[in-house]
Parts: sequence; C-alpha cells; structure tokens
Amino acid sequence: MRQPLVIDCHGHYTTAPKALEEWRNGQVANLNTPDLGPRVSDLRISDDELRESIEANQLRLMRERGSDLTIFSPRASFMAHHIGNFETSATWAAICNELCYRVSQLFPDNFIGAAMLPQSPGVDPASCIPELERCVKEYGMVGINLNPDPSGGHWTSPPLSSRSWYPIYEKMVEYDIPAMIHVSTSCNPCFHTTGSHYLNADTTAFMQCLTSDLFKDFPTLKFLIPHGGGAVPYHWGRFRGLAQEMKKPLLQDHLLNNIFFDTCVYHQPGIDLLTKVIPTKNVLFASEMIGAVRGIDPETGHYYDDTRRYIQAAALSDEDRFQIFEGNARHVYPRLDAALKQKGL
Amino acid sequence: MRQPLVIDCHGHYTTAPKALEEWRNGQVANLNTPDLGPRVSDLRISDDELRESIEANQLRLMRERGSDLTIFSPRASFMAHHIGNFETSATWAAICNELCYRVSQLFPDNFIGAAMLPQSPGVDPASCIPELERCVKEYGMVGINLNPDPSGGHWTSPPLSSRSWYPIYEKMVEYDIPAMIHVSTSCNPCFHTTGSHYLNADTTAFMQCLTSDLFKDFPTLKFLIPHGGGAVPYHWGRFRGLAQEMKKPLLQDHLLNNIFFDTCVYHQPGIDLLTKVIPTKNVLFASEMIGAVRGIDPETGHYYDDTRRYIQAAALSDEDRFQIFEGNARHVYPRLDAALKQKGL
Repeated sequence: MRQPLVIDCHGHYTTAPKALEEWRNGQVANLNTPDLGPRVSDLRISDDELRESIEANQLRLMRERGSDLTIFSPRASFMAHHIGNFETSATWAAICNELCYRVSQLFPDNFIGAAMLPQSPGVDPASCIPELERCVKEYGMVGINLNPDPSGGHWTSPPLSSRSWYPIYEKMVEYDIPAMIHVSTSCNPCFHTTGSHYLNADTTAFMQCLTSDLFKDFPTLKFLIPHGGGAVPYHWGRFRGLAQEMKKPLLQDHLLNNIFFDTCVYHQPGIDLLTKVIPTKNVLFASEMIGAVRGIDPETGHYYDDTRRYIQAAALSDEDRFQIFEGNARHVYPRLDAALKQKGL
Repeated sequence: MRQPLVIDCHGHYTTAPKALEEWRNGQVANLNTPDLGPRVSDLRISDDELRESIEANQLRLMRERGSDLTIFSPRASFMAHHIGNFETSATWAAICNELCYRVSQLFPDNFIGAAMLPQSPGVDPASCIPELERCVKEYGMVGINLNPDPSGGHWTSPPLSSRSWYPIYEKMVEYDIPAMIHVSTSCNPCFHTTGSHYLNADTTAFMQCLTSDLFKDFPTLKFLIPHGGGAVPYHWGRFRGLAQEMKKPLLQDHLLNNIFFDTCVYHQPGIDLLTKVIPTKNVLFASEMIGAVRGIDPETGHYYDDTRRYIQAAALSDEDRFQIFEGNARHVYPRLDAALKQKGL
C-alpha cells in the first residue's frame, strides 16, 4: 500500500499578518459609524507577507510533523458573528475568505480553502449563500464552516435541524461540500471559548442531529464535527442508549453516513478511545495546529496538537491509517478529491 | 482486603409516586395565581407508597447489580429552577428534599440524602442557605446539588468562580459537604437535556474552575462533576495544555484536590479512559440509575447504566476499585463517612 497523503482537514489562518486584526479592530470601533470605519481597500497585505506568515508557521510545522495538505479556513475565534450586523459579517467574511484563497494560490500543494460564512444572529442563513457560492466557484473552496450559534454563547438560533438552515444545506448538497460545525468566540462569561464553548457546541450539534430526521431530508449532507466530536465518543454508550429510547435507528444508520469526527484530541488516550469507538470511516485526520493549545506536553516532550503522533501510535491497521489520513477526507470533501485527481494525485 | 461497600454517589428519586408530579403540575399551572394552587399540605404520599416506589425500582436494581448505598437526591430534571420565582423553588425544593429524607429513613442502610437547592434565576444564591441548613441539620443530608445554570440552558448566571456563589461555598466548608454540580431541564431548544445540556454543564463547570483561583479561596471546597466529567477526561490533554498556556499550576495541584468525577459513563471504553486518565483518588462510583438511559445495550446484553460492570472490567487493582467504590466517597462526603462509622461500618 502506498503511503497516504496526510490531509489535515482542520486548519485556520491563526497567523495572519497583524494588519488583518487591526482592520477588524477598526471595523468594530466604528460599528455604529461605518462611514468612518476602514474600507476594504484600506487593508493591504502583500503576497510576501502572506508567504512569510505561512512559511514560518503552518508550513514549517506541517513539514516537521509530516502532513501534506491542510484544508484552510479563516480563524474560527475571529469569525465573531455576534459582532455587528449582516453587513459587518459580510465584509469581514469576504476579507478573511479572500486571504485564505490567496494562501491556497501561493501554496497550491499545501493548502486548499474552506469558507467562513457571513452569519449574523437573527439573520436568515440564506443570506450567506452569495458568499458561499463565490468561495466555491471563484476560489475553488471545498467546504464551509457553519456556526450553529452565531450569538457567541447565547444559543439564540434554532437547532441545526430547523428548516431555517435548509437553504444552506441545499447549496451544500448542490455543490457537494461538507460543513465543519464550528462556533466562534464566546461572549458569554460562562463559557471559555476553546475550553468549553467549542466542545459544548460539538456535543450540542451531534445531539441536534440525533433527535431529528435531518438526514432523511438530506441523505447526502455531510457534517464534520471538530475537536474529536466534543464529548460524543467518550459518551458513545449514552448516545446509543438515548437514540434507542427515542426509537431512532442504530447510530451507524441514523447518523454515521452523514456525521464525521476530526482528530483534534490532544492526548493519546483520547485518540485511542476515538479510534476504538467510532468506525474508521468516520474519523478524519486534523490538528487545528497553532490553535487553542500551542504548548509542548511535558509528559511526552511533543506538541499537544501534533496529533499525527497519536494516530501513528494508535492500535490501527495501515489500511485504517490510510483512511484516516487521506481516504476519508477524499470521501467527505469530493471537491478536494477532484482537485487532487486533477493534479494526478 | 475486605470487600468494599459499594456506594453509588449519584442517585435521583426518578421514581417518586405520580402524586408528586401532579402536585408540581398544579403549582406550575398556578404560577401567577398561587392562592389557587395546591398547598404543601395537599400532597399526601404514604410511607407504603414511598417504599413501593423504591423497592420495585432502585432497591431491586441495587440488589441485582450489587451496590449497597445510594446518595439520593431529588430528580435532577424536575428541579427546573427556571420555573417561577424563589418562592416557587423554595416550596418545591422543600417538598422534594423531604421525600428523599423520608426514603433515607425508611431504608437507612441503603439511602442517604443529598439536597436540591431552591435556586432561581437572578436570585442571590445566599437565599438557598436556610434550606441547605435544614437538610444538613434536620435531615442528616451529606451533600448538595448545585445548579450552575438555574436559567435552564440560557446560562445567565455568573461563573462558579464569581463571589455571588461564595455564601454557598462558605456553608459547604462550614458543614464539610460537597456539591455535585448538576443542571436541570433545558428550556433552550438548542440543548437536549440529558444528551447535551448535562454534559455541556459538566465541561463548563470544570473550565470555570480551571480559569479561576476559586480553590485558593476555598482550599477544602469539593465539587463532584457528574457524567464522568462531561468532555473533560476525553480532552484531558487539551485541558492540561490550556492550563499551561494560562500559567496555572499542573491540574493535579490546581484542581484535583477539589474536583472529583463520577462514573456515569455508559460504555466500557469510556470508563477505561476515565480510570486511565484521571487519578483513582478523583473517581467516585455512580450510576444515576433509572435516569437518562434506561435500556439494555444490545452490544452487551446489560443495562447501559449498570456501571458497576464497567468498573469491575476496567484495568484496576483491587485497591483502586476499593477507592472508587467506597474510599473516595468517604473522603469526599465526610458526613457520610461519619454516619457509616456510627453504624460500625
């Protein structure tokens, strides 16, 4: 069997040049006086700056750790859909997506884009479709990040099974792109962004799907639940039992043709559980590197988020590992598969 | 080594006679016209009815599964602190606590009480102290259930590290009782009560402690985080890494003298992870039986919530198992330990 292409399906542009954050700060400062605020054309980031921010960071670590290609989207915690209104998010999403697109053009062998959406609390999700279409058609992006809680920790939107989300799903099916279900910064003081809000959202999204028949309406819809699925694999017996009480089909039939989990779990026992409990076909390699946890684990001497090591050390066959590193990503992201095939890969 | 007393530290009175629910329905129906609503004295449940509800359910299963003593508190999903105002909760908590006390009197070898508190959203937690004192002093209860989100899924209260909770903690320290951090029914349609709200709350509570220095102010305060700690053990590397980034001490020093996890994880791989990752001294046996997941696991032929089987099958020494079944509960619940010693146990 040939060596797998190692595809990291969860990378964010967390290292963008400082000018991006400064532009956003200006936008936020002038939320109520947008005429005074920075224009899109005020943001100038050169290709050299982009190159530098990637070569010194993500690309360096990808080479060191042995991953080949990252599905690259705007920084999740910076999406902050709760700030401002639809116009605020639309402008900000367009800027952030364009930067990821430029990175994918500068490093076509190592990065391919996924889009953030211009969501805004209380605004019809259908309003995101023009940006989604632009990212797929003009930028060749292969997936989207869908925020189930644009309020930032107040959870004021309906569950993912609500028909209000259906326009997004219809476009996803039309373009054959998956969504990573990913919240952004919590502005609720109860929830630490990366320590509880992210994980809670993962569990919540899974359960919203479990209690509904969403995938009967959209049999080919695909959701990738990040951070190893939140609490779900650890409590797999609980979820199997809850589905049983609700007279739902077995989870493998009810959800596992449509829901996938990434491997952003930052210690060996967690990855061992994930790969033991969840069928291999539902697990996609990911690190979210240079993200929530950037340090070195004193217990191992390696970076917490160097998840490739955990996959290598897990009790998996070469075939399983091939699926987790490459095969499953090609299945879940058909446009990625097509792009690779076009390159003869 | 002698056989451990098997102490289930997480039992709720989920099988109370129907009259209790009917009384509550009456209370809720007359929230705005309490004069029309049922009086406390309208609720009449005989000792025989209590006996029957326990003998046919919890006690039968305890005997079948081999657990000896349950720390027994009012049904968690029925606390519903978001309903009505402080008076609503005060009356309801008093009724529910008294029933658990009566069960503990009818079956003194098998049940000992833990109290629900009359919390209400936006009301000073100090208002709960009279009921807490009554339950400890008059009912001999050994712990409390503390709801970090009395709003029922809207998360409008400050984090557990906020000084507004301190009056409760001062009483806990004074009486040497722990709190199980346990939410109630979700009235937010985003969150399924037992499938996501419970687990999210567990993770959230842990992270609220991690980011704070609460246990510097209360070095002997003890929190029991139920449902196996939500997502925490599965993501233990993430939490270690986040603490490290925040320059907090190692989790074993920062939190594990004060935070404990129960074993309400309903499959073997989850219990294996829990007992591998979390020090034995921080794991307390529990089942939450006749609770969220009441069915039989077709993969094993046994009840999902028969957690004693998983502990028996986990890679643990007899000494570890003794601690998980008995020793740790005596440490975390000193009043339970004292009550047992008084019986010569």
